[in-house]
Amino acid sequence: MTTKDDAAEAFAGESQANRKYKIFSEKADAEGYSNVAKLYRAASEAEAIHAKRLLFLLQQVNSTEENLKKSIEGETSEYTSMYPSFIKDAEKENDKEAATIFTHAMKAEEVHATNYGRALEAVAGGNDLEISKVFLCPVCGNIVFDSVPDTCPICGVPGRMFKEIE
Amino acid sequence: MTTKDDAAEAFAGESQANRKYKIFSEKADAEGYSNVAKLYRAASEAEAIHAKRLLFLLQQVNSTEENLKKSIEGETSEYTSMYPSFIKDAEKENDKEAATIFTHAMKAEEVHATNYGRALEAVAGGNDLEISKVFLCPVCGNIVFDSVPDTCPICGVPGRMFKEIE
Ligand SMILES: [Fe+2]
Ligand SMILES: [Fe+2]
Ligand SMILES: [Fe+2]
Ligand SMILES: [Fe+2]
Ligand SMILES: [Fe+2]
Ligand SMILES: [Fe+2]
Repeated sequence: MTTKDDAAEAFAGESQANRKYKIFSEKADAEGYSNVAKLYRAASEAEAIHAKRLLFLLQQVNSTEENLKKSIEGETSEYTSMYPSFIKDAEKENDKEAATIFTHAMKAEEVHATNYGRALEAVAGGNDLEISKVFLCPVCGNIVFDSVPDTCPICGVPGRMFKEIE
Repeated sequence: MTTKDDAAEAFAGESQANRKYKIFSEKADAEGYSNVAKLYRAASEAEAIHAKRLLFLLQQVNSTEENLKKSIEGETSEYTSMYPSFIKDAEKENDKEAATIFTHAMKAEEVHATNYGRALEAVAGGNDLEISKVFLCPVCGNIVFDSVPDTCPICGVPGRMFKEIE
């Protein structure tokens, strides 16, 4: 393989290890192993360092305008192609849990693409995004600007459960 | 594809988006787009939520003892197989930057495997890991217990640069 392919594969592995170890740290804390939890937090951060170096090596960290364009491409491919085909598979297997998770993610990615579109419009004109606040749905990953809805239009949880992002 | 394969592919994609958006948020802040940075932080957290739901769906979150065994397998495969072969590729292409990044990661993964081995020994006996502090090298991802070395044995930075993990 080429070094570039290697770096892409390593970035995928490091990113997944970063997420796994974060979740395993929460599990270790829940089981009362607080030092093991601390080790998992440290290792999660170590894999984040590896992932970051690899992403720079891959020259995938560019201007914010370029980053936004690539982010919109990624989100669009997820909500128009990847998740719709995964939802069909889950329905074929009658796996309702998987179908729900895929559907929530698909709808959230569509919102993310729209959010990034607004950001790109601003940045292309040399301006920051004109918003006051950003809120995240902790269940489905929906993102809304300025104020929360009564209930999440994607997953239905009360808007008061949304988390303001600093 | 099966739903299980789909979920594994989605977990890989979500984990990578989580890392990319985190790094893009830092870039947006550096360019003075603080609201775009906030949006990227929100989206990074959204993808973390997606990744977590998928990892549970994949039944890859188990007891800490099981999690440690899997983590040791992953680290061992990275430091004995994946990174050594990537280092050979980088040397063949005379890509020194890639070779350094791969080598630092390989050596850090070996340390992680050893750290997790100590944790597994403790947890298998029903005990928490007996350590006082955990420190992380911010350059190479090396992890040491209790006190920092004069210089990092992997990447050579001064031990005072190590970060204590809470
Ligand atoms: Fe790593
Ligand atoms: Fe997204
Ligand atoms: Fe939601
Ligand atoms: Fe996502
Ligand atoms: Fe590691
Ligand atoms: Fe180091």
